[in-house]
Amino acid sequence: MYLVTSGHDQHTVDVAAQVAAAGAGVVQVRAKDITTRELLALTKDVLAAVREANPATAVVVDDRADVALAAGADGVHLGQDDLPPSVARQMLGPDAIIGLTTGTLELVQQAQAFHTDNPGVLDYIGAGPFRPTPTKDSGRQPLWVDGYPPLVAATSLPIVAIGDVTVEDVADLSATGIAGVAMVRCLMNADDPHTEASRALALWRGRAYRDY
Amino acid sequence: MYLVTSGHDQHTVDVAAQVAAAGAGVVQVRAKDITTRELLALTKDVLAAVREANPATAVVVDDRADVALAAGADGVHLGQDDLPPSVARQMLGPDAIIGLTTGTLELVQQAQAFHTDNPGVLDYIGAGPFRPTPTKDSGRQPLWVDGYPPLVAATSLPIVAIGDVTVEDVADLSATGIAGVAMVRCLMNADDPHTEASRALALWRGRAYRDY
Repeated sequence: MYLVTSGHDQHTVDVAAQVAAAGAGVVQVRAKDITTRELLALTKDVLAAVREANPATAVVVDDRADVALAAGADGVHLGQDDLPPSVARQMLGPDAIIGLTTGTLELVQQAQAFHTDNPGVLDYIGAGPFRPTPTKDSGRQPLWVDGYPPLVAATSLPIVAIGDVTVEDVADLSATGIAGVAMVRCLMNADDPHTEASRALALWRGRAYRDY
Repeated sequence: MYLVTSGHDQHTVDVAAQVAAAGAGVVQVRAKDITTRELLALTKDVLAAVREANPATAVVVDDRADVALAAGADGVHLGQDDLPPSVARQMLGPDAIIGLTTGTLELVQQAQAFHTDNPGVLDYIGAGPFRPTPTKDSGRQPLWVDGYPPLVAATSLPIVAIGDVTVEDVADLSATGIAGVAMVRCLMNADDPHTEASRALALWRGRAYRDY
């Protein structure tokens, strides 16, 4: 499970920590309308909180390789309009996590062709939107559950589904062959993000969630 | 002389090359409302054109150390809200040019204190606005000519005046002890940027410009 943050206050940091504690694999720090220095501060805060909550959870930064490097984050998530992945890989080194946004068969095929020619640059691809989303207007058609198997078939890269995915979608999506689900609003706006994330992870693992 | 670009088309690249050919010391690539990938492409184009026009002209990128690194530019110009200078220095290495925006006595004193504690991080500071400018609203009061001598006295760092500086201001500004003048609109909008830049440089050097 993969959390994409929204906002840039203590709530953002708290949710990141709770979702990490529940067992999320990745937290992506995303905040478009703040200054570079604010993004750096937010990334450092999220990183510290996530490290404390769960050392196994990776923290990546949306778009900004320089901020990822400056904060000591684990990697960067790149959109199609961000730095080319090869450049980010050069900047961040072989151990960084680098993801790329896709969402159509053509973009997945392009990513796969790139990956074949440049192994070791991309670690995963995001694919979305799963459903229409107010968070990010990509101009791409929603994929829904049925859109994922053809994408999975077109690449050897792990695919993370994104775009208004909710806990209720996790079981269906887990059967499509994708590697993970990214969530934004459903966790950021949850009354209890830890429980919500735990439910999602339990469903992902194929069993109903029980609150121990 | 220091050009700060505006726009992100062929005109931007052409003006940069002409101003470099006229003898500008620095071209800063600044473009706030484009994608990272567009900024990278623009920076590469400006860099190639400036290198060809004048190998002695440095090219720095506004804000984005990652783009500077990716493009192979000479450095980065940082605002007060951008990455901390130490982080950029770490990222770009000892030879990069790193500048910081200031514009009040307090900010210059802060920059100087930082410079004293961390020699080798900052190469110069920008100080502005010289006059009120529509390009960038910093919230700071315009300095006019008389504002510069106290700033020059407060720091050992070279000061570059910025903020709607025109060729007509150069002679007066050159007498304040600053190290250079940055120009945006006066060169970007000039009918003949090369001549305009040559005039500015000749005035800076204390003599009237003659078109040889």
